[in-house]
Amino acid sequence: MDKSRRTLLKIGTGFALSSAVTTWAGATPAAIKVPADSGLAGDALRLVTYQHAAAKAPRLGVVTAQGMVIDVGATARELGMTLAFDPASMVSLIAAGPDAVAQARRCAASGRAHASLDGVRLLAPIPVPARNVYAVGWNYLEHFGESLTAKQAALPKHPVFFTKGTHTINGPFDPIPFNPSVSVKIDWEGELAVIIGKRGHNIAEADAMQYVFGYAVINDTTARDMQVDHGGQWFKGKSLDGHGPIGPWIIPASDIDYTNLQLTTRVNGVVKQQINTSQMYFKVPRIIEELSLGLTLEPGDIIATGTPSGIGAARNPPEFLKPGDVMETEIDRIGMIRNVIRQVTT
Amino acid sequence: MDKSRRTLLKIGTGFALSSAVTTWAGATPAAIKVPADSGLAGDALRLVTYQHAAAKAPRLGVVTAQGMVIDVGATARELGMTLAFDPASMVSLIAAGPDAVAQARRCAASGRAHASLDGVRLLAPIPVPARNVYAVGWNYLEHFGESLTAKQAALPKHPVFFTKGTHTINGPFDPIPFNPSVSVKIDWEGELAVIIGKRGHNIAEADAMQYVFGYAVINDTTARDMQVDHGGQWFKGKSLDGHGPIGPWIIPASDIDYTNLQLTTRVNGVVKQQINTSQMYFKVPRIIEELSLGLTLEPGDIIATGTPSGIGAARNPPEFLKPGDVMETEIDRIGMIRNVIRQVTT
Repeated sequence: MDKSRRTLLKIGTGFALSSAVTTWAGATPAAIKVPADSGLAGDALRLVTYQHAAAKAPRLGVVTAQGMVIDVGATARELGMTLAFDPASMVSLIAAGPDAVAQARRCAASGRAHASLDGVRLLAPIPVPARNVYAVGWNYLEHFGESLTAKQAALPKHPVFFTKGTHTINGPFDPIPFNPSVSVKIDWEGELAVIIGKRGHNIAEADAMQYVFGYAVINDTTARDMQVDHGGQWFKGKSLDGHGPIGPWIIPASDIDYTNLQLTTRVNGVVKQQINTSQMYFKVPRIIEELSLGLTLEPGDIIATGTPSGIGAARNPPEFLKPGDVMETEIDRIGMIRNVIRQVTT
Repeated sequence: MDKSRRTLLKIGTGFALSSAVTTWAGATPAAIKVPADSGLAGDALRLVTYQHAAAKAPRLGVVTAQGMVIDVGATARELGMTLAFDPASMVSLIAAGPDAVAQARRCAASGRAHASLDGVRLLAPIPVPARNVYAVGWNYLEHFGESLTAKQAALPKHPVFFTKGTHTINGPFDPIPFNPSVSVKIDWEGELAVIIGKRGHNIAEADAMQYVFGYAVINDTTARDMQVDHGGQWFKGKSLDGHGPIGPWIIPASDIDYTNLQLTTRVNGVVKQQINTSQMYFKVPRIIEELSLGLTLEPGDIIATGTPSGIGAARNPPEFLKPGDVMETEIDRIGMIRNVIRQVTT
């Protein structure tokens, strides 16, 4: 276990719950802090969308290894650099291509810093995606096994695709609403998120990685009762508001090898899911090839690539999230998101 | 059979195919004309998004019973009326509420006309929806029966929900791409589309109709092979680009009773599906109650409410659409959309 991992577990164990706040969409509770050493090792570019405490409007930033946030728009002005993108829009940056990433790197290298992570609210990197989140089902074999009867469990020939509604998108440290009159079977699904970088359809597997902008951590939080109660189609159970926390930032694909990353989901500090992304059944290029067949992918599209075994519904006895629980989803070399389950009444 | 119906069938029978055009996203082929008497009976307000031949930018219009298009933005200027919405955006009009509809009615009543239907290209009323199209499966009992094995066919307790990607949206008279390397099992599914008028979640069935802005005709065109080849989740087979033609306009809910409308799908003039919307199993208020449970609906959201029996895959032998076929989807008192299947190679 490396140093950052130990520290994270320590933070997780001693975590103070925030139960007094009654609306889930409010400001980040004080107790939910960005772990200062989560995913900060190395020189990877960490692209965030964030709010200053004093200003509600989202803006783009880069996060340094020291946990400082560099305001991309302000830095560009200070450096006299004309940006190729709107410094309030991650999708604009993504769509602008490699020049935009190079400009963000110049900001990161500038040595300037406008805030510490403690002083800002990190939003979902893409707070309002232009369409539903694409999601892959059963993409780690152990999870495939735990979710199916023996009769069904032939190895899949094609990926399973479903979507999560746009309002599932939630910040990396924001609370997840729990309304007992909606569902009391809320389950975790830690996953690697792929962010698409450019438009394309009928993309060949061999070319697919050219279409990947970068990666983030996502939790495909799921209402298990709704997942099965609607004729076997998963959309409804996958699409409760706020049930898709993502972040804490996007790492460009050039800065990381997605095929060998440890993925861990913890609840109240206890490890529930743990796997290496090397165990993905359908790798990212194949997912993109199949998804884009006759379907145009766009810059900023999000693909949740599937969860490993260890979900709550498959445990004996089954376990589900309850108000006050702290769900942590972490991918080494990317970072961690941490979300408290918060009861709401409407 | 009323007069408009006879005329439509005549037009359908003598239809000239356009096979020379090779890209599906181009301008409307000359042969695809708006039937001048489709859905034009009565005083209902017909809200369109359209392009003038001379101007590519979409704009809002209202269509008169004489088949003339009134440019809403231009009329407002001529009348000295300050619009409550952006006259280039249907979602803006919808979100602006009853005042916006009243303003559109003033334009309709102005007696002005800026083009004939023949001189414009009707786009999908909402050309770029902000999220995937919500869709209901198995909502007419005969179709439920034709699609399931006896063992599965208990009556549903909840609606089946899935989504269609945003790029499925296609114009009411635009061609539908057919790429044999993607799918050769393209099937029709004529449906009533509900357009949501205001934001809400946890909407009670009794209140749900307050959230309906209006109605349109949609065809939930489906690649049957892909629908079953992805682990039983329908999203992929439902989401090929252009496979969700919708229109020809939106009729406000105040102007029509959705519970008693004849729905017909024809292929090359032959009736394939025909039912009255009174036969819906889950009515619109129940659909909205279930869909909005824990999930926020927004103005401009689109719900395809399910297809009746008569799909191609359930026929003996099965029938699928092929290049050159003309698919017509019609709902009395709303209108008709007509789409040619057009082969593409990329």
